[in-house]
Amino acid sequence: MNPIQVGLLGIGTVGSGTFKVLQRNQAEIRRRAGRGIEITMVADLDTARARSVVGDGVTVVADARAVIANPDIDIVIELIGGYGIARTLVLEAIAAGKHVVTANKALLAVHGSEIFAAASAKGVIVAFEAAVAGGIPIIKALREGLTANRIDWVAGIINGTTNFILSEMRSKGLDFGVVLKEAQRLGYAEADPTFDIEGVDAAHKATIMSAIAFGVPVQFDKAYVEGITGLQAADIRYAEQLGYRIKLLGITKRRDHGIELRVHPTLIPSTRLIANVEGAMNAVLVHGDAVGPTLYYGKGAGSEPTASAVIADLVDITRLHTADPDHRVPHLAFQPGSLSDTPILSIDDVVTAFYLRLQVADQTGVLARITGILAEHGISIDAVLQRPGADGDGTPTRVRGEGDTDLIILTHDTVEGRMKSALAQMQALPTVLAPIVRIRKEELN
Amino acid sequence: MNPIQVGLLGIGTVGSGTFKVLQRNQAEIRRRAGRGIEITMVADLDTARARSVVGDGVTVVADARAVIANPDIDIVIELIGGYGIARTLVLEAIAAGKHVVTANKALLAVHGSEIFAAASAKGVIVAFEAAVAGGIPIIKALREGLTANRIDWVAGIINGTTNFILSEMRSKGLDFGVVLKEAQRLGYAEADPTFDIEGVDAAHKATIMSAIAFGVPVQFDKAYVEGITGLQAADIRYAEQLGYRIKLLGITKRRDHGIELRVHPTLIPSTRLIANVEGAMNAVLVHGDAVGPTLYYGKGAGSEPTASAVIADLVDITRLHTADPDHRVPHLAFQPGSLSDTPILSIDDVVTAFYLRLQVADQTGVLARITGILAEHGISIDAVLQRPGADGDGTPTRVRGEGDTDLIILTHDTVEGRMKSALAQMQALPTVLAPIVRIRKEELN
Repeated sequence: MNPIQVGLLGIGTVGSGTFKVLQRNQAEIRRRAGRGIEITMVADLDTARARSVVGDGVTVVADARAVIANPDIDIVIELIGGYGIARTLVLEAIAAGKHVVTANKALLAVHGSEIFAAASAKGVIVAFEAAVAGGIPIIKALREGLTANRIDWVAGIINGTTNFILSEMRSKGLDFGVVLKEAQRLGYAEADPTFDIEGVDAAHKATIMSAIAFGVPVQFDKAYVEGITGLQAADIRYAEQLGYRIKLLGITKRRDHGIELRVHPTLIPSTRLIANVEGAMNAVLVHGDAVGPTLYYGKGAGSEPTASAVIADLVDITRLHTADPDHRVPHLAFQPGSLSDTPILSIDDVVTAFYLRLQVADQTGVLARITGILAEHGISIDAVLQRPGADGDGTPTRVRGEGDTDLIILTHDTVEGRMKSALAQMQALPTVLAPIVRIRKEELN
Repeated sequence: MNPIQVGLLGIGTVGSGTFKVLQRNQAEIRRRAGRGIEITMVADLDTARARSVVGDGVTVVADARAVIANPDIDIVIELIGGYGIARTLVLEAIAAGKHVVTANKALLAVHGSEIFAAASAKGVIVAFEAAVAGGIPIIKALREGLTANRIDWVAGIINGTTNFILSEMRSKGLDFGVVLKEAQRLGYAEADPTFDIEGVDAAHKATIMSAIAFGVPVQFDKAYVEGITGLQAADIRYAEQLGYRIKLLGITKRRDHGIELRVHPTLIPSTRLIANVEGAMNAVLVHGDAVGPTLYYGKGAGSEPTASAVIADLVDITRLHTADPDHRVPHLAFQPGSLSDTPILSIDDVVTAFYLRLQVADQTGVLARITGILAEHGISIDAVLQRPGADGDGTPTRVRGEGDTDLIILTHDTVEGRMKSALAQMQALPTVLAPIVRIRKEELN
């Protein structure tokens, strides 16, 4: 059988990796797929760069539409990124009857419903294993490996940049700004790191996992997103003393009346396997009612790890594209007609435990007043730690005032709205001397 | 569309779990599969037990062949176990045109080639996600998720009983026999634990993973199998002092002239995520040339975790059985016609590093003589630790002779045959006072 012909839109880091891995492992991939898979056409505005990667024998064009218009191309890989032209080209490729492979989480988290509907109507596949957690086959695990389960929750370290920064902050005791500069120097953070450090990238991925886990449409606009820019070294160290590590997690959880979808720094017990995922690595913990906890770990970014996921999608399409579309794996795990309208809950309705750090005057009755406010709100306390006041870098100090104390409180689970009200009352106390630090806490068990 | 009808052979722990999960999550599973999946007939010699699990409305028979003969049944689940009647029934089910789901690793590791050939000839699917690592979708990850990769190696904690025993030995400092009794009392080890503690169960699973990773036939008879019955608490503690943990690993590795396939206790760096997999949990580490290391973690046994894998296979078959057999995922990941005849290497040709513990007389020149023998064999040394002699339980002691010393040596990688020859020479030295302990070591990087 002739090789299946693939057109590639955008040949940057991931595109180059895809081309190279497909060439290097072509014999092995053919033995698996039962048919050769060849990138025969590449579109990139920088045609010289594209040519330098693919050599002769591959058609290089500047115009992506020339790839989409080529009748010999069965599959189009979209690696342009972003919501703009990528959306237009993906929809045009679908309209032209091409199967599409994309690593574009932003596009799918925001315009996924439109794209999957168009693909279903046209009977083509849109595959996106590379969009979440790079080389880890987490989409396949969620969508096919755990189909027996009512998924309870998913919690993932799904952004390598922020996990690298948090690992460095913890192991070296440094503050956020210092480590960010180091990460940029080492290439772990981009020149404009906003999407990563503000949690937006993780929220795109969590949105996609939420849809697949619970059979709801992608709803990025409903996600609660909080990044790591406000994290201080002192809190990482206090957390450690209490037996916790702080990770930026993308979490989605089934609740009685809705679904939680949120990204924020989270204290997790340091004995959990996922708490020990360090550096730029990714890991996703999935809890199903039958299987219990399962974890998937690997490289979440980079040229060849992401290419690994792109090519796995190419092999899947090569195997399955001749099958009746009704018998393919649905894009979002559930049949298009049976998506649920279960709402995404507001952050005020989310239930978590909390880590609180209050800089308080060292006076009689302060602790009683604060714990009293928590009690009045029905929030119960798990642990209290009192320490001499610390600077932002965590060094105990008396500079700010002789009687200052850091009061660290771990609460049990509570509704966020209730905690907000309690925090407002505590913050208004004259004995609370600085903005209260609050970080959510999950036991993940 | 009518539900797809499933017949179940053997309704013990896993069978009951499969029935219960399929009932409990039937609505969710139908939304995913696009069609209901129902167990409508059960065969078990203990018909009373079977009836007590399934209630009315399901046909219960003592004769498995009645299930196979039922024309309404599309899929047969084999949960009888063992090589005997299970093999006959699986082959008869295939001959009758049924798709088969099985959790039977022993059967597939030994008779897999015969079974897969029969299935291919008949155009039916034999699915076996539950055969390796219980609820972890590792077969799917290896066979579909990592198709882009030339797999370099796979190393897994794939037997919960032995991992529970090793975890307890390490955390409590107890010897093997004591912990085995505890494991039996708690239900983590069977009354006859031979298959688990001698490594046979892990070798069945490693054999299946080896075939899928490298595109070779299943060859259980070529696997090297060494269990944990000889492990002493002293070695677990010395390993810990050197920064390693001892795990029973199933390992399969691609080498230039063949494939390694082996199960044995292994020192691994305690900083590796897989070294921190404790208790009865399973984890499989897969290294691919493009993706790098990926890890899959979860429950490797138990009623509902294993049922999770069985049902995932049912959903896959429900989706895919209408597809042209040539376009299905091949049983062993590679197309049946393109399996490789790369040989499984003899253990003498396997390359690993080693941990050695020698009980030696505390005399001048002993270390020089021993390291000299290693040097003569071209084996280089990574680390040496000398300790006052220890009893089997690891307590330092002088009882055995005033001048005894434990000499612990970590070597770099070497061919096993060479190490055997060096060990024979060292063992013959009059200053070596007891059988030398040797445990293989892997860095897993």
